[in-house]
Amino acid sequence: MSLMTNYRLEICYDGTKYNGWQRLGNTSNTLQEKIETLLSRLLEQPIVLAASGRTDAGVHARSQVCSFHADTSMSCEDILLGLRRYLPTDIGAISLKVASPRFHARYNCVRKTYIYRVWTSNAPNVFDRKYMYFFRETLNLDEMRRAADFLCGEHDFASFTSAKKMKKSTVRRIDAIKITQKDGELQLSFTGNGFLRGMVRILTGTLLEIGLGKRPADSIPEILASLNRESAGFTAPPEGLILWSVEY
Amino acid sequence: MSLMTNYRLEICYDGTKYNGWQRLGNTSNTLQEKIETLLSRLLEQPIVLAASGRTDAGVHARSQVCSFHADTSMSCEDILLGLRRYLPTDIGAISLKVASPRFHARYNCVRKTYIYRVWTSNAPNVFDRKYMYFFRETLNLDEMRRAADFLCGEHDFASFTSAKKMKKSTVRRIDAIKITQKDGELQLSFTGNGFLRGMVRILTGTLLEIGLGKRPADSIPEILASLNRESAGFTAPPEGLILWSVEY
Repeated sequence: MSLMTNYRLEICYDGTKYNGWQRLGNTSNTLQEKIETLLSRLLEQPIVLAASGRTDAGVHARSQVCSFHADTSMSCEDILLGLRRYLPTDIGAISLKVASPRFHARYNCVRKTYIYRVWTSNAPNVFDRKYMYFFRETLNLDEMRRAADFLCGEHDFASFTSAKKMKKSTVRRIDAIKITQKDGELQLSFTGNGFLRGMVRILTGTLLEIGLGKRPADSIPEILASLNRESAGFTAPPEGLILWSVEY
Repeated sequence: MSLMTNYRLEICYDGTKYNGWQRLGNTSNTLQEKIETLLSRLLEQPIVLAASGRTDAGVHARSQVCSFHADTSMSCEDILLGLRRYLPTDIGAISLKVASPRFHARYNCVRKTYIYRVWTSNAPNVFDRKYMYFFRETLNLDEMRRAADFLCGEHDFASFTSAKKMKKSTVRRIDAIKITQKDGELQLSFTGNGFLRGMVRILTGTLLEIGLGKRPADSIPEILASLNRESAGFTAPPEGLILWSVEY
Protein backbone atom coordinates (compact mmCIF):
# COMPACT_ATOMS: atom_id res chain seq x y z
CA MET A 1 0.00 0.00 0.00
CA SER A 2 1.37 3.37 -1.00
CA LEU A 3 2.08 5.91 1.72
CA MET A 4 2.04 8.66 -0.84
CA THR A 5 -0.12 11.67 -0.10
CA ASN A 6 -1.39 13.88 -2.89
CA TYR A 7 -0.94 17.64 -2.39
CA ARG A 8 -2.46 20.75 -3.94
CA LEU A 9 -0.11 23.73 -3.95
CA GLU A 10 -1.17 27.22 -4.96
CA ILE A 11 1.60 29.62 -5.97
CA CYS A 12 2.13 33.01 -7.57
CA TYR A 13 5.12 34.34 -9.45
CA ASP A 14 6.69 37.24 -11.21
CA GLY A 15 7.82 35.45 -14.36
CA THR A 16 10.19 38.20 -15.57
CA LYS A 17 13.41 36.31 -14.83
CA TYR A 18 12.25 32.78 -15.67
CA ASN A 19 12.33 30.62 -18.77
CA GLY A 20 8.69 29.76 -18.27
CA TRP A 21 7.08 27.03 -16.22
CA GLN A 22 8.23 23.82 -17.80
CA ARG A 23 11.44 22.03 -16.91
CA LEU A 24 12.98 20.78 -20.13
CA GLY A 25 16.16 18.98 -21.04
CA ASN A 26 18.43 21.91 -21.70
CA THR A 27 16.32 24.78 -20.45
CA SER A 28 17.49 26.02 -17.12
CA ASN A 29 15.95 28.54 -14.77
CA THR A 30 12.40 27.34 -15.11
CA LEU A 31 9.80 27.77 -12.40
CA GLN A 32 9.08 24.05 -12.27
CA GLU A 33 12.75 23.24 -11.72
CA LYS A 34 13.09 25.90 -9.01
CA ILE A 35 10.12 24.71 -6.98
CA GLU A 36 10.69 20.99 -7.53
CA THR A 37 14.31 21.30 -6.39
CA LEU A 38 13.28 23.08 -3.21
CA LEU A 39 10.42 20.65 -2.45
CA SER A 40 12.70 17.68 -3.11
CA ARG A 41 15.20 19.02 -0.57
CA LEU A 42 12.55 19.89 2.00
CA LEU A 43 10.87 16.49 1.72
CA GLU A 44 14.07 14.53 1.07
CA GLN A 45 12.67 12.71 -1.94
CA PRO A 46 12.32 13.45 -5.65
CA ILE A 47 9.22 15.54 -6.28
CA VAL A 48 7.54 16.00 -9.65
CA LEU A 49 5.10 18.88 -10.01
CA ALA A 50 2.10 18.99 -12.32
CA ALA A 51 0.79 22.50 -12.93
CA SER A 52 -2.61 23.56 -14.28
CA GLY A 53 -0.78 24.68 -17.39
CA ARG A 54 2.59 25.82 -18.63
CA THR A 55 3.19 29.52 -18.69
CA ASP A 56 5.69 30.81 -21.26
CA ALA A 57 8.95 32.58 -20.49
CA GLY A 58 8.25 35.97 -18.91
CA VAL A 59 4.57 35.27 -18.15
CA HIS A 60 3.34 35.86 -14.58
CA ALA A 61 0.90 34.05 -12.34
CA ARG A 62 -1.32 35.54 -9.66
CA SER A 63 -2.64 32.06 -8.96
CA GLN A 64 -1.17 28.89 -10.39
CA VAL A 65 -2.18 25.49 -9.02
CA CYS A 66 0.13 22.45 -8.89
CA SER A 67 -0.19 18.92 -7.57
CA PHE A 68 2.45 16.46 -6.40
CA HIS A 69 2.77 13.22 -4.47
CA ALA A 70 5.04 12.77 -1.48
CA ASP A 71 5.60 10.39 1.40
CA THR A 72 6.35 12.54 4.40
CA SER A 73 5.47 13.05 8.05
CA MET A 74 5.78 16.84 7.69
CA SER A 75 2.55 18.77 8.11
CA CYS A 76 1.22 20.96 5.31
CA GLU A 77 1.88 23.96 7.50
CA ASP A 78 5.54 23.06 7.94
CA ILE A 79 6.02 22.38 4.23
CA LEU A 80 4.41 25.73 3.44
CA LEU A 81 6.65 27.51 5.96
CA GLY A 82 9.68 25.83 4.39
CA LEU A 83 8.63 26.96 0.92
CA ARG A 84 8.03 30.52 2.10
CA ARG A 85 11.38 30.57 3.80
CA TYR A 86 13.48 29.37 0.89
CA LEU A 87 11.67 30.43 -2.26
CA PRO A 88 13.11 33.52 -3.97
CA THR A 89 11.09 36.74 -3.52
CA ASP A 90 9.64 36.47 -7.03
CA ILE A 91 7.88 33.16 -6.27
CA GLY A 92 5.25 32.96 -3.54
CA ALA A 93 3.63 29.94 -1.89
CA ILE A 94 -0.01 30.83 -1.26
CA SER A 95 -1.40 27.61 0.19
CA LEU A 96 -0.77 23.89 0.52
CA LYS A 97 -3.46 21.30 1.19
CA VAL A 98 -3.89 17.56 1.09
CA ALA A 99 -5.86 16.75 -2.07
CA SER A 100 -7.99 13.75 -2.91
CA PRO A 101 -5.81 10.86 -4.23
CA ARG A 102 -6.95 11.32 -7.84
CA PHE A 103 -6.59 15.09 -8.01
CA HIS A 104 -4.33 16.25 -10.84
CA ALA A 105 -3.67 19.97 -11.34
CA ARG A 106 -3.68 19.72 -15.14
CA TYR A 107 -6.25 17.02 -15.94
CA ASN A 108 -8.86 18.20 -13.44
CA CYS A 109 -8.69 21.87 -14.36
CA VAL A 110 -12.05 22.94 -15.80
CA ARG A 111 -11.55 26.67 -16.36
CA LYS A 112 -8.78 29.21 -16.38
CA THR A 113 -8.69 32.97 -16.54
CA TYR A 114 -5.79 34.91 -17.98
CA ILE A 115 -5.57 38.69 -17.89
CA TYR A 116 -3.52 40.64 -20.41
CA ARG A 117 -2.62 44.17 -19.27
CA VAL A 118 -1.92 46.90 -21.83
CA TRP A 119 -0.78 50.42 -20.95
CA THR A 120 -2.29 52.67 -23.63
CA SER A 121 -1.59 56.06 -22.09
CA ASN A 122 1.28 58.37 -22.93
CA ALA A 123 1.72 59.05 -19.23
CA PRO A 124 4.56 57.15 -17.61
CA ASN A 125 3.93 54.11 -15.43
CA VAL A 126 7.13 53.11 -13.71
CA PHE A 127 5.71 50.88 -10.97
CA ASP A 128 3.80 48.39 -13.13
CA ARG A 129 6.22 48.45 -16.02
CA LYS A 130 7.21 44.79 -15.66
CA TYR A 131 3.60 43.61 -15.66
CA MET A 132 2.22 45.45 -18.66
CA TYR A 133 2.67 45.80 -22.38
CA PHE A 134 3.28 49.44 -23.32
CA PHE A 135 1.22 49.87 -26.47
CA ARG A 136 0.43 53.56 -26.72
CA GLU A 137 -2.07 53.65 -29.52
CA THR A 138 -5.66 54.74 -29.89
CA LEU A 139 -7.83 51.65 -29.99
CA ASN A 140 -11.41 51.13 -31.07
CA LEU A 141 -12.72 49.11 -28.14
CA ASP A 142 -16.12 48.52 -29.71
CA GLU A 143 -14.49 46.80 -32.67
CA MET A 144 -12.30 44.76 -30.33
CA ARG A 145 -15.37 43.66 -28.35
CA ARG A 146 -17.19 42.74 -31.54
CA ALA A 147 -14.20 40.61 -32.57
CA ALA A 148 -14.08 39.05 -29.10
CA ASP A 149 -17.69 37.89 -29.54
CA PHE A 150 -16.65 35.91 -32.64
CA LEU A 151 -13.91 34.22 -30.60
CA CYS A 152 -16.14 33.05 -27.77
CA GLY A 153 -17.53 29.53 -27.90
CA GLU A 154 -15.95 26.27 -28.99
CA HIS A 155 -13.60 26.58 -31.95
CA ASP A 156 -10.53 25.02 -33.45
CA PHE A 157 -7.88 27.57 -32.43
CA ALA A 158 -5.10 26.16 -34.63
CA SER A 159 -4.60 29.66 -36.10
CA PHE A 160 -3.95 31.00 -32.61
CA THR A 161 -1.09 28.86 -31.41
CA SER A 162 2.66 29.05 -31.69
CA ALA A 163 2.90 25.26 -31.30
CA LYS A 164 4.07 23.38 -34.36
CA LYS A 165 1.85 20.76 -35.96
CA MET A 166 0.28 19.02 -33.04
CA LYS A 167 -1.23 15.59 -32.88
CA LYS A 168 -3.50 16.68 -30.07
CA SER A 169 -6.73 18.53 -30.59
CA THR A 170 -6.57 22.29 -31.00
CA VAL A 171 -10.25 22.69 -30.15
CA ARG A 172 -10.89 24.83 -27.09
CA ARG A 173 -13.85 26.66 -25.61
CA ILE A 174 -13.64 30.34 -24.64
CA ASP A 175 -16.40 31.26 -22.19
CA ALA A 176 -15.78 34.99 -21.97
CA ILE A 177 -13.50 37.75 -23.17
CA LYS A 178 -13.89 40.99 -21.24
CA ILE A 179 -12.25 44.17 -22.47
CA THR A 180 -12.14 47.00 -19.96
CA GLN A 181 -10.36 50.34 -19.94
CA LYS A 182 -9.61 52.14 -16.69
CA ASP A 183 -7.48 55.26 -16.74
CA GLY A 184 -4.44 54.41 -18.85
CA GLU A 185 -4.85 50.66 -18.58
CA LEU A 186 -6.64 48.31 -20.94
CA GLN A 187 -7.33 44.83 -19.59
CA LEU A 188 -8.27 41.85 -21.71
CA SER A 189 -9.57 38.98 -19.61
CA PHE A 190 -9.91 35.53 -21.18
CA THR A 191 -11.79 32.70 -19.49
CA GLY A 192 -11.99 29.25 -21.05
CA ASN A 193 -11.58 25.54 -20.58
CA GLY A 194 -7.99 25.61 -21.81
CA PHE A 195 -5.55 27.59 -23.89
CA LEU A 196 -3.05 26.40 -26.47
CA ARG A 197 0.57 27.43 -26.37
CA GLY A 198 0.86 31.18 -27.10
CA MET A 199 -2.92 31.39 -27.60
CA VAL A 200 -3.74 34.25 -25.24
CA ARG A 201 -0.89 36.36 -26.56
CA ILE A 202 -1.88 35.76 -30.21
CA LEU A 203 -5.54 36.47 -29.41
CA THR A 204 -4.40 39.71 -27.74
CA GLY A 205 -2.15 40.70 -30.66
CA THR A 206 -4.98 40.04 -33.12
CA LEU A 207 -7.49 42.02 -31.05
CA LEU A 208 -5.01 44.92 -30.82
CA GLU A 209 -4.62 44.94 -34.62
CA ILE A 210 -8.42 45.05 -34.90
CA GLY A 211 -8.49 47.91 -32.38
CA LEU A 212 -6.03 49.79 -34.58
CA GLY A 213 -8.23 49.26 -37.63
CA LYS A 214 -5.63 47.10 -39.37
CA ARG A 215 -8.20 44.31 -39.78
CA PRO A 216 -11.97 44.22 -39.38
CA ALA A 217 -13.70 42.56 -36.44
CA ASP A 218 -15.55 40.20 -38.76
CA SER A 219 -12.32 38.77 -40.14
CA ILE A 220 -12.21 36.49 -37.09
CA PRO A 221 -14.34 33.67 -38.60
CA GLU A 222 -11.97 33.50 -41.59
CA ILE A 223 -8.90 33.48 -39.36
CA LEU A 224 -10.38 30.63 -37.33
CA ALA A 225 -11.39 28.71 -40.47
CA SER A 226 -7.92 28.99 -42.03
CA LEU A 227 -6.35 26.87 -39.25
CA ASN A 228 -3.16 28.75 -40.10
CA ARG A 229 -1.05 30.76 -37.67
CA GLU A 230 -0.10 33.17 -40.49
CA SER A 231 -3.61 34.53 -40.78
CA ALA A 232 -3.80 35.73 -37.15
CA GLY A 233 -2.12 38.79 -35.66
CA PHE A 234 1.17 39.29 -33.85
CA THR A 235 2.11 37.65 -30.57
CA ALA A 236 1.78 40.22 -27.79
CA PRO A 237 4.87 40.16 -25.53
CA PRO A 238 4.89 37.97 -22.40
CA GLU A 239 5.25 40.68 -19.73
CA GLY A 240 1.62 41.78 -20.07
CA LEU A 241 0.21 38.30 -19.44
CA ILE A 242 -0.80 36.96 -16.06
CA LEU A 243 -2.48 33.67 -15.17
CA TRP A 244 -5.23 35.06 -12.96
CA SER A 245 -7.15 32.06 -11.63
CA VAL A 246 -7.67 28.36 -12.11
CA GLU A 247 -10.90 26.48 -11.41
CA TYR A 248 -11.53 22.81 -10.57
CA MET B 1 17.78 90.84 -20.30
CA SER B 2 17.78 87.16 -19.57
CA LEU B 3 16.17 84.83 -22.07
CA MET B 4 15.95 82.11 -19.46
CA THR B 5 12.60 80.46 -18.97
CA ASN B 6 11.71 78.79 -15.69
CA TYR B 7 10.19 75.29 -15.96
CA ARG B 8 8.21 73.05 -13.63
CA LEU B 9 8.78 69.34 -14.27
CA GLU B 10 6.79 66.60 -12.58
CA ILE B 11 8.36 63.15 -12.52
CA CYS B 12 7.93 59.73 -10.95
CA TYR B 13 10.51 57.05 -10.32
CA ASP B 14 11.18 53.58 -9.04
CA GLY B 15 14.15 54.37 -6.79
CA THR B 16 15.33 50.75 -6.39
CA LYS B 17 18.44 51.10 -8.53
CA TYR B 18 19.41 54.67 -7.65
CA ASN B 19 21.65 56.26 -5.07
CA GLY B 20 18.90 58.69 -4.16
CA TRP B 21 18.02 62.03 -5.65
CA GLN B 22 20.99 64.22 -4.99
CA ARG B 23 24.00 64.50 -7.26
CA LEU B 24 27.09 64.59 -5.06
CA GLY B 25 30.81 64.69 -5.69
CA ASN B 26 31.59 60.99 -5.71
CA THR B 27 28.13 59.49 -5.71
CA SER B 28 27.18 58.22 -9.11
CA ASN B 29 23.89 56.88 -10.38
CA THR B 30 21.71 59.50 -8.76
CA LEU B 31 18.35 60.53 -10.14
CA GLN B 32 19.36 64.18 -10.35
CA GLU B 33 22.44 63.35 -12.41
CA LYS B 34 20.47 61.08 -14.74
CA ILE B 35 17.77 63.65 -15.51
CA GLU B 36 20.11 66.66 -15.60
CA THR B 37 22.41 64.90 -18.06
CA LEU B 38 19.51 64.07 -20.36
CA LEU B 39 17.99 67.58 -20.16
CA SER B 40 21.41 69.15 -20.77
CA ARG B 41 21.79 67.08 -23.94
CA LEU B 42 18.26 67.74 -25.14
CA LEU B 43 18.52 71.50 -24.54
CA GLU B 44 22.23 71.76 -25.42
CA GLN B 45 23.11 73.72 -22.30
CA PRO B 46 24.00 72.85 -18.72
CA ILE B 47 20.82 72.28 -16.69
CA VAL B 48 20.64 72.28 -12.90
CA LEU B 49 17.53 70.77 -11.33
CA ALA B 50 16.01 71.78 -8.00
CA ALA B 51 13.64 69.15 -6.57
CA SER B 52 10.98 69.60 -3.89
CA GLY B 53 13.21 67.49 -1.66
CA ARG B 54 15.93 64.87 -1.78
CA THR B 55 14.78 61.29 -1.60
CA ASP B 56 17.25 58.78 -0.13
CA ALA B 57 18.77 55.82 -1.96
CA GLY B 58 16.09 53.27 -2.77
CA VAL B 59 13.14 55.59 -2.06
CA HIS B 60 10.46 55.97 -4.75
CA ALA B 61 8.39 58.88 -6.01
CA ARG B 62 4.89 58.78 -7.41
CA SER B 63 5.07 62.55 -7.87
CA GLN B 64 8.23 64.58 -7.47
CA VAL B 65 8.38 68.19 -8.65
CA CYS B 66 11.52 69.89 -9.99
CA SER B 67 12.29 73.31 -11.41
CA PHE B 68 15.03 74.46 -13.78
CA HIS B 69 15.96 77.40 -15.97
CA ALA B 70 16.78 77.08 -19.65
CA ASP B 71 17.13 79.24 -22.73
CA THR B 72 15.59 77.28 -25.57
CA SER B 73 13.19 77.55 -28.47
CA MET B 74 11.91 74.01 -27.91
CA SER B 75 8.29 73.75 -26.81
CA CYS B 76 7.37 72.13 -23.50
CA GLU B 77 5.69 69.37 -25.46
CA ASP B 78 8.85 68.61 -27.42
CA ILE B 79 11.02 68.63 -24.31
CA LEU B 80 8.55 66.28 -22.60
CA LEU B 81 8.56 63.96 -25.61
CA GLY B 82 12.36 63.95 -25.57
CA LEU B 83 12.41 63.07 -21.89
CA ARG B 84 9.88 60.27 -22.37
CA ARG B 85 11.87 58.92 -25.25
CA TYR B 86 15.25 58.79 -23.57
CA LEU B 87 14.59 58.33 -19.86
CA PRO B 88 15.07 54.77 -18.59
CA THR B 89 11.86 52.85 -17.85
CA ASP B 90 12.21 53.38 -14.10
CA ILE B 91 11.96 57.18 -14.43
CA GLY B 92 8.83 58.79 -15.88
CA ALA B 93 8.22 62.36 -17.03
CA ILE B 94 4.64 63.23 -16.06
CA SER B 95 4.38 66.87 -17.15
CA LEU B 96 6.40 69.93 -18.06
CA LYS B 97 5.10 73.51 -17.86
CA VAL B 98 6.48 77.01 -17.95
CA ALA B 99 6.51 78.29 -14.35
CA SER B 100 6.49 81.83 -13.03
CA PRO B 101 10.01 83.31 -12.99
CA ARG B 102 10.35 83.05 -9.21
CA PHE B 103 9.02 79.50 -8.83
CA HIS B 104 11.47 77.21 -7.04
CA ALA B 105 10.56 73.54 -6.47
CA ARG B 106 12.18 73.41 -3.03
CA TYR B 107 11.65 76.87 -1.55
CA ASN B 108 8.03 77.21 -2.67
CA CYS B 109 6.90 73.77 -1.55
CA VAL B 110 4.32 74.15 1.22
CA ARG B 111 3.28 70.57 1.91
CA LYS B 112 4.40 67.08 1.08
CA THR B 113 2.87 63.68 1.56
CA TYR B 114 4.91 60.51 1.90
CA ILE B 115 3.38 57.06 2.11
CA TYR B 116 5.17 54.17 3.76
CA ARG B 117 3.87 50.73 2.72
CA VAL B 118 4.26 47.74 5.03
CA TRP B 119 3.25 44.18 4.14
CA THR B 120 2.14 42.58 7.40
CA SER B 121 0.58 39.38 6.05
CA ASN B 122 2.21 35.98 5.90
CA ALA B 123 0.76 35.54 2.43
CA PRO B 124 3.23 36.13 -0.39
CA ASN B 125 3.20 39.34 -2.42
CA VAL B 126 5.52 38.99 -5.37
CA PHE B 127 4.26 41.87 -7.52
CA ASP B 128 4.70 44.72 -5.03
CA ARG B 129 7.78 43.32 -3.37
CA LYS B 130 10.04 46.18 -4.45
CA TYR B 131 7.66 48.83 -3.12
CA MET B 132 6.94 47.50 0.36
CA TYR B 133 8.65 46.65 3.59
CA PHE B 134 7.91 43.04 4.57
CA PHE B 135 7.33 43.24 8.31
CA ARG B 136 5.17 40.29 9.22
CA GLU B 137 4.25 41.04 12.80
CA THR B 138 1.03 41.62 14.67
CA LEU B 139 0.69 45.34 15.32
CA ASN B 140 -1.51 47.28 17.69
CA LEU B 141 -2.85 49.94 15.34
CA ASP B 142 -4.70 51.81 18.09
CA GLU B 143 -1.44 52.35 19.95
CA MET B 144 0.28 53.42 16.73
CA ARG B 145 -2.50 55.94 16.06
CA ARG B 146 -2.28 57.25 19.61
CA ALA B 147 1.48 57.74 19.14
CA ALA B 148 0.87 59.42 15.77
CA ASP B 149 -1.34 62.01 17.50
CA PHE B 150 1.62 63.00 19.70
CA LEU B 151 3.75 63.50 16.59
CA CYS B 152 1.34 65.82 14.77
CA GLY B 153 1.83 69.54 15.10
CA GLU B 154 4.98 71.64 15.15
CA HIS B 155 7.92 70.04 16.94
CA ASP B 156 11.68 69.93 16.92
CA PHE B 157 12.26 66.58 15.19
CA ALA B 158 16.00 66.39 15.93
CA SER B 159 15.43 62.89 17.41
CA PHE B 160 13.95 61.77 14.11
CA THR B 161 16.72 62.54 11.65
CA SER B 162 19.77 60.68 10.43
CA ALA B 163 21.49 63.99 9.61
CA LYS B 164 24.47 64.85 11.76
CA LYS B 165 24.50 68.01 13.87
CA MET B 166 22.84 70.54 11.67
CA LYS B 167 23.09 74.28 11.78
CA LYS B 168 19.66 74.60 10.23
CA SER B 169 16.43 74.33 12.16
CA THR B 170 15.08 70.86 12.84
CA VAL B 171 11.62 72.20 13.59
CA ARG B 172 8.92 70.89 11.26
CA ARG B 173 5.14 70.69 11.25
CA ILE B 174 3.30 67.42 10.65
CA ASP B 175 -0.29 68.06 9.60
CA ALA B 176 -1.54 64.50 9.54
CA ILE B 177 -0.45 60.89 9.98
CA LYS B 178 -2.98 58.37 8.70
CA ILE B 179 -2.57 54.70 9.48
CA THR B 180 -4.74 52.36 7.44
CA GLN B 181 -4.79 48.60 7.04
CA LYS B 182 -6.29 46.98 3.96
CA ASP B 183 -5.93 43.23 3.46
CA GLY B 184 -2.29 42.45 4.10
CA GLU B 185 -1.07 45.99 3.63
CA LEU B 186 -0.52 48.66 6.26
CA GLN B 187 -0.08 52.20 4.97
CA LEU B 188 1.33 55.08 6.98
CA SER B 189 0.72 58.41 5.29
CA PHE B 190 2.60 61.49 6.54
CA THR B 191 1.67 65.01 5.47
CA GLY B 192 3.66 68.00 6.63
CA ASN B 193 5.45 71.18 5.66
CA GLY B 194 8.79 69.42 5.36
CA PHE B 195 10.71 66.36 6.47
CA LEU B 196 14.29 66.07 7.69
CA ARG B 197 16.69 63.57 6.26
CA GLY B 198 15.56 60.03 7.20
CA MET B 199 12.62 61.45 9.17
CA VAL B 200 9.75 59.50 7.63
CA ARG B 201 11.65 56.22 7.90
CA ILE B 202 12.58 56.83 11.56
CA LEU B 203 9.00 57.90 12.36
CA THR B 204 7.82 54.67 10.71
CA GLY B 205 10.34 52.51 12.58
CA THR B 206 9.37 54.12 15.88
CA LEU B 207 5.65 53.66 15.19
CA LEU B 208 6.24 50.01 14.27
CA GLU B 209 8.07 49.44 17.57
CA ILE B 210 5.10 51.00 19.35
CA GLY B 211 2.76 48.73 17.39
CA LEU B 212 4.80 45.72 18.59
CA GLY B 213 4.47 46.87 22.21
CA LYS B 214 8.23 47.50 22.53
CA ARG B 215 7.56 51.07 23.65
CA PRO B 216 4.41 52.86 24.80
CA ALA B 217 2.58 55.40 22.65
CA ASP B 218 3.06 58.09 25.27
CA SER B 219 6.84 57.80 25.10
CA ILE B 220 6.70 60.09 22.04
CA PRO B 221 6.84 63.39 24.00
CA GLU B 222 10.02 62.20 25.76
CA ILE B 223 11.60 61.09 22.49
CA LEU B 224 10.86 64.47 20.95
CA ALA B 225 12.14 66.32 24.03
CA SER B 226 15.43 64.40 24.07
CA LEU B 227 16.52 65.86 20.71
CA ASN B 228 18.59 62.69 20.39
CA ARG B 229 18.43 60.17 17.55
CA GLU B 230 19.28 57.37 19.97
CA SER B 231 15.96 57.67 21.78
CA ALA B 232 13.84 57.04 18.66
CA GLY B 233 13.23 53.71 16.93
CA PHE B 234 14.91 51.98 14.00
CA THR B 235 15.09 53.35 10.48
CA ALA B 236 12.58 51.49 8.33
CA PRO B 237 14.16 50.40 5.03
CA PRO B 238 13.89 52.64 1.96
CA GLU B 239 11.94 50.32 -0.35
CA GLY B 240 8.66 50.92 1.52
CA LEU B 241 8.82 54.70 1.15
CA ILE B 242 7.24 56.70 -1.65
CA LEU B 243 6.99 60.43 -2.12
CA TRP B 244 3.29 60.62 -2.89
CA SER B 245 2.52 64.28 -3.63
CA VAL B 246 3.93 67.76 -3.35
CA GLU B 247 1.90 70.94 -2.87
CA TYR B 248 2.68 74.56 -3.77
